[in-house]
Amino acid sequence: MFFLNKGPFDINFIISKTQYTKKKKYKKFNVKNVSTIEHSKKGDITFFENKKYLNYLQKTNTSYCLIRKKDLVYLNQKKIIPIVSDKPLLDFIIIALLFYPESNQDNDDIRFSNKYNKFIDKNSFVDESVCFGKNFEIGYNSIVKKNVQIGDNVKIGSNCTISNSIISNNVIISDGSIIGKIGFGFKQINKEIIFIPHFGCVKIKENVYIGANCIIDRGSFLNTVIGKGVKIDNQVHVAHNVVVGDNTYIAAQVGIAGSSKIGKNCLIGGQTGISGHLLIGDNVKIGGKSGVIKNLTNNSKVIGYPASSFKEFLKNYD
Amino acid sequence: MFFLNKGPFDINFIISKTQYTKKKKYKKFNVKNVSTIEHSKKGDITFFENKKYLNYLQKTNTSYCLIRKKDLVYLNQKKIIPIVSDKPLLDFIIIALLFYPESNQDNDDIRFSNKYNKFIDKNSFVDESVCFGKNFEIGYNSIVKKNVQIGDNVKIGSNCTISNSIISNNVIISDGSIIGKIGFGFKQINKEIIFIPHFGCVKIKENVYIGANCIIDRGSFLNTVIGKGVKIDNQVHVAHNVVVGDNTYIAAQVGIAGSSKIGKNCLIGGQTGISGHLLIGDNVKIGGKSGVIKNLTNNSKVIGYPASSFKEFLKNYD
Amino acid sequence: MFFLNKGPFDINFIISKTQYTKKKKYKKFNVKNVSTIEHSKKGDITFFENKKYLNYLQKTNTSYCLIRKKDLVYLNQKKIIPIVSDKPLLDFIIIALLFYPESNQDNDDIRFSNKYNKFIDKNSFVDESVCFGKNFEIGYNSIVKKNVQIGDNVKIGSNCTISNSIISNNVIISDGSIIGKIGFGFKQINKEIIFIPHFGCVKIKENVYIGANCIIDRGSFLNTVIGKGVKIDNQVHVAHNVVVGDNTYIAAQVGIAGSSKIGKNCLIGGQTGISGHLLIGDNVKIGGKSGVIKNLTNNSKVIGYPASSFKEFLKNYD
Repeated sequence: MFFLNKGPFDINFIISKTQYTKKKKYKKFNVKNVSTIEHSKKGDITFFENKKYLNYLQKTNTSYCLIRKKDLVYLNQKKIIPIVSDKPLLDFIIIALLFYPESNQDNDDIRFSNKYNKFIDKNSFVDESVCFGKNFEIGYNSIVKKNVQIGDNVKIGSNCTISNSIISNNVIISDGSIIGKIGFGFKQINKEIIFIPHFGCVKIKENVYIGANCIIDRGSFLNTVIGKGVKIDNQVHVAHNVVVGDNTYIAAQVGIAGSSKIGKNCLIGGQTGISGHLLIGDNVKIGGKSGVIKNLTNNSKVIGYPASSFKEFLKNYD
Repeated sequence: MFFLNKGPFDINFIISKTQYTKKKKYKKFNVKNVSTIEHSKKGDITFFENKKYLNYLQKTNTSYCLIRKKDLVYLNQKKIIPIVSDKPLLDFIIIALLFYPESNQDNDDIRFSNKYNKFIDKNSFVDESVCFGKNFEIGYNSIVKKNVQIGDNVKIGSNCTISNSIISNNVIISDGSIIGKIGFGFKQINKEIIFIPHFGCVKIKENVYIGANCIIDRGSFLNTVIGKGVKIDNQVHVAHNVVVGDNTYIAAQVGIAGSSKIGKNCLIGGQTGISGHLLIGDNVKIGGKSGVIKNLTNNSKVIGYPASSFKEFLKNYD
Repeated sequence: MFFLNKGPFDINFIISKTQYTKKKKYKKFNVKNVSTIEHSKKGDITFFENKKYLNYLQKTNTSYCLIRKKDLVYLNQKKIIPIVSDKPLLDFIIIALLFYPESNQDNDDIRFSNKYNKFIDKNSFVDESVCFGKNFEIGYNSIVKKNVQIGDNVKIGSNCTISNSIISNNVIISDGSIIGKIGFGFKQINKEIIFIPHFGCVKIKENVYIGANCIIDRGSFLNTVIGKGVKIDNQVHVAHNVVVGDNTYIAAQVGIAGSSKIGKNCLIGGQTGISGHLLIGDNVKIGGKSGVIKNLTNNSKVIGYPASSFKEFLKNYD
């Protein structure tokens, strides 16, 4: 929706663009899309590199899979056509940029429209493609970029930048927050450092509150998701692909690194940092200023850095 | 000043709106205001729930006090009329929203005025009710909302949002800072999550410097106060009801949680976090990246998390 | 370039303005500039106070040096004329403000020009003195102040403020970032608290990426430098005089205190804090949420607070 799919492309054309793939001739086929192994469908091309995702490899209906030679044993080659690559992720990135060539940057173009003049009076710029529901309010000097979807009773503050986002009903986004920009991810392909494409978006569900000067980056190959009823204080950073479960509360200055999943009904104390690619269960309580570096099961209660039990944290403290 | 008091209201009308109060008929009386037990005056209604405030309960001149049955023994019922509630704070919130129905949100309305045209040339919007002294400067794309009071020689940077604030002479607020928005506080009343009303403001005294992208939330039932000569570096978060004493220095990325009081002449190192509801004395030195979780007496010198002596912090460190 | 040098001034006039200098009559000489001992040239005045800079004192070609009586033994008085001061830094500050009287503040004046009208359509204000290369893009509601130099293929997001900066080719600065403002430094001279003058600038070299809501303060007596290929995530704070080496990656919410030098090819994890005046070598890896309080040699790998080896950090952690 936010990035135009330039495909389909013939598989042989795709392969010709890769850098680390053993070149061979495939049967002509129009590949429809790129997608992660978790979400890949018939007609798509995906990649497999991390054993953590082995269960998805076994279930996927993808048509093509970039894969290292040594991992071929895991692939059902009757169902899926392997594309042997020394660096499946890097070749996937190259291919993703074929399909979504604008997804590795932020775009500032806004098309004006008379229907949104009332926002221009406040120096706020809302692209003519933005659709919003009843009772939409926006402050001063804010920007809402193309194709953003906004539900009923949504309030966006001043000096905000909203892009690549789907925002449900009853959401408040406070002043200075930036939602939907590209995340922090780079890869070296040959000698060049390039941005990882970010063709995902940010989904913000009902009744979410986001404080001031927060940043929520859009997903790279997936979406960043903020669940229903989540409340986020000021200056919080939510990296690409993070999923925050319903009704979780996040205090000020928290940082959540890329691809971590936070459960429902969690309480995360101020200035806490959560490493990337973690699974935090439901009803977890994390004390302020903690550093969480491993998965946490449901109902965990941790504090400190590395985060462990409250008792351990306070053992030498009077 | 910032929120219109819709009262007075008859005490029986007030009681009829509560959720956790034992209903009974009181003598007709026009209640003038809601206030905390520390500041409550004759004619007001307040609440008592936390034993920490017992000394204020004994001194208050309030007319009515929401109180749990078990706490009635602490109340001088000759002087103050008790209103027995299972949840005094929640009923107080309901009542506060009767008096200040707009205090649980941020409002973006600005009335323009010819007299402030010169700011509009810079895309800055200053409400016509704002009063300011000599030598007021404001940058680009900033907003100053209704009833804000600004002294002499005040300088506000670009992309700032200032609301619900009383700013004294010789104050500098740098680019991107947001002063006076609602704080982070929610309560569940029946099944609904609501914002705690914030009818307090932010008071910034003489000679204060505030860096860039800082946030100072307004008080809920009290004010947030930044003392004379306080210097605050970039990206600092000061939560609702915090009081910072005169001439205290706060380095970058510090977070101070709600209702803590910091003394005079303190030095707070960068990235430090201070928990809520603490009392930090005068002349306290807090090393960078500390986590302060208990009160600190005058002249304390602490570091680490939990913050303790420098000696303890460095004991295993060469 | 960013601050007009009001000199030269006769040495006797300069001395007459100092506060802590023993007054005596010097031979008439027009002092051209103020500079740090590391960069001082013939015709300049500098100061010496910190033994760390003794090697520079022995090499400098400065004409005058503010120095404590007890340090005179280190000075080659045949070459350099000493100016004995009880507080060399404070007197240097007074003198620096003679040469650069506007360097202790941020200035919001922007002169408009027809040639930059296209930016004004986006509510962005670019001073007519700004020079930029090919393919310059700027978002909405941003400000670029006087004399900023911008190379080819530079992209500045929305709600940014850029001042006192020299930006090379292929640089991206994301939304809400503030580059080149005055740093956090105050000194008391007699009874008055004053800003340390900041007549340095920010140099951003080729291929740098800066995330959203970041702040990079300009140098005080030197420049703040961001090396080639450096990538900086969101909400990072880089204080005055910091030098970041080429190709170093800095994750979100990191804070680097004043005058620290970071080497090349370092990886700095999210929420890390680095104290001021440190030397961090090349190829250093710093784990997330670390607090670095001493110098680190090349190829160090540290984590925790105080940052030490990974083994030490995890020794009691399962």
